Amino acid sequence: MKKIWLIFFISMMVISLRAQQNLDFSGSGGIISPEIHPNNTVTFRLNAPNVKTVAVQGDFISETANMVKGTDGIWTYTSAVLPSEFYSYSFIADGLKINDPNNVYVVRDVASVFNVFLIGGGQGDLYKVNDVPHGTVARRWYDSPGLKMTRRITIYTPPGYEASNANYPVLYLLHGVGGDEEAWMALGRASQIMDNLIALGKAKPMIVVMTNGHTGNAAAPGESSKGFYKPVMMTPDVFNGDMETSFGDVIQFVENNYRVHKDKAHRAIAGLSMGGQHTMYISANYPNTFDYMGLFSPAIVKPNNPNATVYKDLDGKLNAQMKNGYRLYWIGIGKADFLINNVNEYRDKLDKMGMKYVYRESSGGHTWANWRIYSSEFVPLLFQ
Amino acid sequence: MKKIWLIFFISMMVISLRAQQNLDFSGSGGIISPEIHPNNTVTFRLNAPNVKTVAVQGDFISETANMVKGTDGIWTYTSAVLPSEFYSYSFIADGLKINDPNNVYVVRDVASVFNVFLIGGGQGDLYKVNDVPHGTVARRWYDSPGLKMTRRITIYTPPGYEASNANYPVLYLLHGVGGDEEAWMALGRASQIMDNLIALGKAKPMIVVMTNGHTGNAAAPGESSKGFYKPVMMTPDVFNGDMETSFGDVIQFVENNYRVHKDKAHRAIAGLSMGGQHTMYISANYPNTFDYMGLFSPAIVKPNNPNATVYKDLDGKLNAQMKNGYRLYWIGIGKADFLINNVNEYRDKLDKMGMKYVYRESSGGHTWANWRIYSSEFVPLLFQ
Repeated sequence: MKKIWLIFFISMMVISLRAQQNLDFSGSGGIISPEIHPNNTVTFRLNAPNVKTVAVQGDFISETANMVKGTDGIWTYTSAVLPSEFYSYSFIADGLKINDPNNVYVVRDVASVFNVFLIGGGQGDLYKVNDVPHGTVARRWYDSPGLKMTRRITIYTPPGYEASNANYPVLYLLHGVGGDEEAWMALGRASQIMDNLIALGKAKPMIVVMTNGHTGNAAAPGESSKGFYKPVMMTPDVFNGDMETSFGDVIQFVENNYRVHKDKAHRAIAGLSMGGQHTMYISANYPNTFDYMGLFSPAIVKPNNPNATVYKDLDGKLNAQMKNGYRLYWIGIGKADFLINNVNEYRDKLDKMGMKYVYRESSGGHTWANWRIYSSEFVPLLFQ
Repeated sequence: MKKIWLIFFISMMVISLRAQQNLDFSGSGGIISPEIHPNNTVTFRLNAPNVKTVAVQGDFISETANMVKGTDGIWTYTSAVLPSEFYSYSFIADGLKINDPNNVYVVRDVASVFNVFLIGGGQGDLYKVNDVPHGTVARRWYDSPGLKMTRRITIYTPPGYEASNANYPVLYLLHGVGGDEEAWMALGRASQIMDNLIALGKAKPMIVVMTNGHTGNAAAPGESSKGFYKPVMMTPDVFNGDMETSFGDVIQFVENNYRVHKDKAHRAIAGLSMGGQHTMYISANYPNTFDYMGLFSPAIVKPNNPNATVYKDLDGKLNAQMKNGYRLYWIGIGKADFLINNVNEYRDKLDKMGMKYVYRESSGGHTWANWRIYSSEFVPLLFQ
């Protein structure tokens, strides 16, 4: 037995030098980075003896922080005590932005890939995978006659869905201009938030449907026949009305394929930034369809295609929505968000019309930290 | 309209400098890397004016290749003409292994994250997302009484499964010592291979069940309550018999939760490296359960826990398996694989017993390139 294992290990080490066989240990060394200490400070480490300067940059510091080189060639930096949160960061080595080779956990945001880490003990506990019942996350393809396309969709079904005979309510959860059907999963920690809120008894078990709001794309970058291309934020389909016009295809697919309550009282729609605008227009254009609306840092901007039917007579449509009634119209935005003036103008309009809404103003700006908070506050209000 | 958009864009640019708001354009520049040329050479680019040396390393070159710095500070390297394949690579900048900041497509293998690209026009076309009907990929959690754990499992259901009333055959597809329930999806391109083979009429529509063979883990790194930790290859559960002992829990879950044919003629099992050993022992220990076995570069090594019941009397169990009959016992390995002697010893044993098998010897070693080839050759042989 010893001999076989020795050969096994030596072989693996030799071949790892050539990266020809799939047993690469490089980058593993003995280095742990990031290391989260019991007091919630975090030490970052990078083994880079030949590099002149290394800094760390992330959403837990306002600028960059210089790392310090040890005699062993390992650069380190230890953060201040950090609040419980899901964080992202990169290193900058001799001016080059790089990922932490000792941290395999990464997320993509548009055309950038960042490392992530998570600090528990507070809000971040909602973003963790905890030992609670877990829902199922499926990537499916649905037919959109409105867009003449088969499109990818990400669907969370709550724990117990498969074994149950019950019908469930549905939350349609939309991303921003940089996102796709994966954004709420990767950056929004949506499946963890749902599992945890349901386990805590704070949210009703519900289905969460995550669409792709770039209607020119069939799927997230790399997941369609467009192959591996460099993602861009401003696709030609942005704010052109197609998302709103074709949204009925999504509802129809969900209601034909899942055990759901098919009525207004059991449909919610929410979205961040561009998805907030989608939420506003979709709920106004399908006026008796949703009892719950969530506009998270909504990008209430003039459409690129203002003559699209869905964009016409918004005031008249909002009036109809108001008269038909709804349970919750929830608007959240950060004080430092560059879209806050647009949101304030929209709130003025609603106030003048007498259209009721719940307003949540948080600290911070146009960030996933806020969108995770908004979703974890909004979801418990649904279907109660 | 112009004014609103101007404010929108200026805001985005200002805030991107601070990386505080989620609209980071850094790394996008005008650089395309990798750029795949029509003749299937590939140009890699890295904007790193302050760096002294840059090389590229990947599974398309045997060693590393030096990149050349232009007057603009951008390093480039153009490969030879590459065969159609799914490739991985990294850069080495001043001795530091980094990812390509202009390529957002990455896969993890144990504790390393690599960039990937794909060259079509041959075998690689099977690994592409093509405009064909797509199956559904679900991440679910199943109960394993044998392991006293709820565990994550990745399940591919073929196009048409949801709309059909038919029963389907099942392929259980197992990973190697460095993998988990995501490995066949990320590195093995399993859902693309299945979609494409089915669309070409080369494979029967089937369900593919991808388990986690590290029985001490509930899920892939980052997907369980263990949180974000540094993955290791050699977990204590490796080759200890628990995977084989508890595999009935997986079959039971699948057969209780999916519309499947529950007979030997409609069950296949295959795995790579450690998963090849699992396939050997599981199929021998459940002797009348599988008609199709696939051992891809199997790690036929002495178990760590040789007294486990599943490991005892292998010859007797193989004899029973032979007498019960099966349709296909398929063994594939590369000429340069460090496990080929072990496989040759195993083939000698089978030959002496008179136990029939199909043997496929490929070029290359213990690589995902081979496992993608083996799976794309094995799957068309199933359930015909």
